[in-house]
Amino acid sequence: MGGDDAPQSVVSGARLAAQRGIPIVLVGQPDKLFDAADFEVIAASQAIAMEAEAAASVRKLKDSSLVRAAEAVRDGRACAIVSAGNTGAAMAASMLRMGRIRGVSRPAIATPIIVPGRAWPNVLLDAGANAECSAEWLVQFAQMGAVYCRDRWGVAEPRVGLLSNGEEAGKGSPLVKKAFSLLEDGAWQERAGAAFAGNVEGRNLLEDLVDVIVTDGFTGNVALKTAEGVAKQLIGALVGAFDSSEDARRGARLLMPALAPVYEEFSPDSVGGAILLGVAGVSIISHGASSPVALANAIQVAYELAQRDTVGSLGRIFSPK
Amino acid sequence: MGGDDAPQSVVSGARLAAQRGIPIVLVGQPDKLFDAADFEVIAASQAIAMEAEAAASVRKLKDSSLVRAAEAVRDGRACAIVSAGNTGAAMAASMLRMGRIRGVSRPAIATPIIVPGRAWPNVLLDAGANAECSAEWLVQFAQMGAVYCRDRWGVAEPRVGLLSNGEEAGKGSPLVKKAFSLLEDGAWQERAGAAFAGNVEGRNLLEDLVDVIVTDGFTGNVALKTAEGVAKQLIGALVGAFDSSEDARRGARLLMPALAPVYEEFSPDSVGGAILLGVAGVSIISHGASSPVALANAIQVAYELAQRDTVGSLGRIFSPK
Repeated sequence: MGGDDAPQSVVSGARLAAQRGIPIVLVGQPDKLFDAADFEVIAASQAIAMEAEAAASVRKLKDSSLVRAAEAVRDGRACAIVSAGNTGAAMAASMLRMGRIRGVSRPAIATPIIVPGRAWPNVLLDAGANAECSAEWLVQFAQMGAVYCRDRWGVAEPRVGLLSNGEEAGKGSPLVKKAFSLLEDGAWQERAGAAFAGNVEGRNLLEDLVDVIVTDGFTGNVALKTAEGVAKQLIGALVGAFDSSEDARRGARLLMPALAPVYEEFSPDSVGGAILLGVAGVSIISHGASSPVALANAIQVAYELAQRDTVGSLGRIFSPK
Repeated sequence: MGGDDAPQSVVSGARLAAQRGIPIVLVGQPDKLFDAADFEVIAASQAIAMEAEAAASVRKLKDSSLVRAAEAVRDGRACAIVSAGNTGAAMAASMLRMGRIRGVSRPAIATPIIVPGRAWPNVLLDAGANAECSAEWLVQFAQMGAVYCRDRWGVAEPRVGLLSNGEEAGKGSPLVKKAFSLLEDGAWQERAGAAFAGNVEGRNLLEDLVDVIVTDGFTGNVALKTAEGVAKQLIGALVGAFDSSEDARRGARLLMPALAPVYEEFSPDSVGGAILLGVAGVSIISHGASSPVALANAIQVAYELAQRDTVGSLGRIFSPK
């Protein structure tokens, strides 16, 4: 029931995913799910609005599609949840209904950031779940990010960078300095099959320097929204220039075939949605504006992560028998 | 003596500024300042390297150009310092030799960020001087940023935003929440002739929503470097596309007249360097890669701020008689 064009875009995305052979359960108000007769539906009479206060809504709207979807994973009726709705509510519903993986202090949102020219993105976490973090949590984020990066993109030994205000060791806030010293420890790196690569800076976000970038949810949110804002402003200025004269329009037409791949590479659709790591189930949170293709891709990612048992791998790292 | 192409680019920039009627004093090693016979020169036998450790260098290299330049302002031989050298060392030399404005807890670096289509930029501070800040310092940054914005760009009543991970009041780290409540107080706004506009997000950095954006030096550094990195990556990808085929090259040639203003608007040269606010003198820190034109513009800004007595205005705000 969530997303800018819901539930139509979600149903269309589900149909595309079903055509790829992925079994789908829709969760929502049956009378609003047109053209969904061929899907299994779990009825949920309520919906949490895009701008609603997240935690309160999840507590109050017990028959909402987000809460029922998270319960379906908890109860084994589904192997993963994909939502394009209220991010905070999807997070809260997943945490409250699925619960945390044993040993994980705080779940974190992991968001892919494109690296132009590289087959896989950088994974940034926490992208906004925890505005205040401890250094120990950042180490857990590093472990979760590394496992996710390996399971999703096949990166054998992910390199983990710590977001700071300078590359040199010793740079950073007190939190970053403490996290740096904990991350240098070899034991977690071995357990997660990862390698700590030291500090990275904001300018490295889209660069092929590391595979996972760890930060607190406040800084991660600011960095991601800054990146989105700059890209949007710059692209807006370019699009304006393309239409500013007859010569410009002719030039833009000639350039289109060369620009299309750049546009596609920088589009959020190509890397897919964010994932909430650390909860006891796969929970993918897509942009509210996701196209049906983007949603189908997100569903496929959720399906593959469930098949690879990423949640089980995380469980073994955080509570070894 | 500082900057990627020093001292030649600095001397050229000084010459351009002198042609605009601005009196110049060069500080550096006289035998390296070719073509500078027509300038007054303060001799300094040492130079702090671009990558040298800032505070230690300033303490040790007492006859360096940065230290001597800051002393020239302290001693009234110059009204302002402009440097394209080691940012940390320029900061340290200014703080140690000029001293702080009475009542200012911590100087902050204020960096202009272009707002496409608007005549003046957003001023972000602290852009990196203080990795850890108190809420009270953020209020001082707000006051300093507002005075600077008015003196430099003539904005009558600057709007001040607080960088956070959400627009709503109550969003943010504990630091941001505390700063929010302090910034709501009317007394500082009246004293600085500013208006608190609430929280802003990373995506608002280049938008015409506020005039001054306040944050701690860690977050400010990450946000600025993220913005620079994304712009650089996106422009790099576009430039690659422009040269990827014969059609693309023809299209790019037709588009050039329309793209040039966009490129110029997004270029750091057009808004000029950063300023260290809160020290008892004007101290402007330009990019190491500044062109002579960019340096001449920075010198002109320094000259105008000295004429408008921005430092005196700040002094009256922070220690009213």
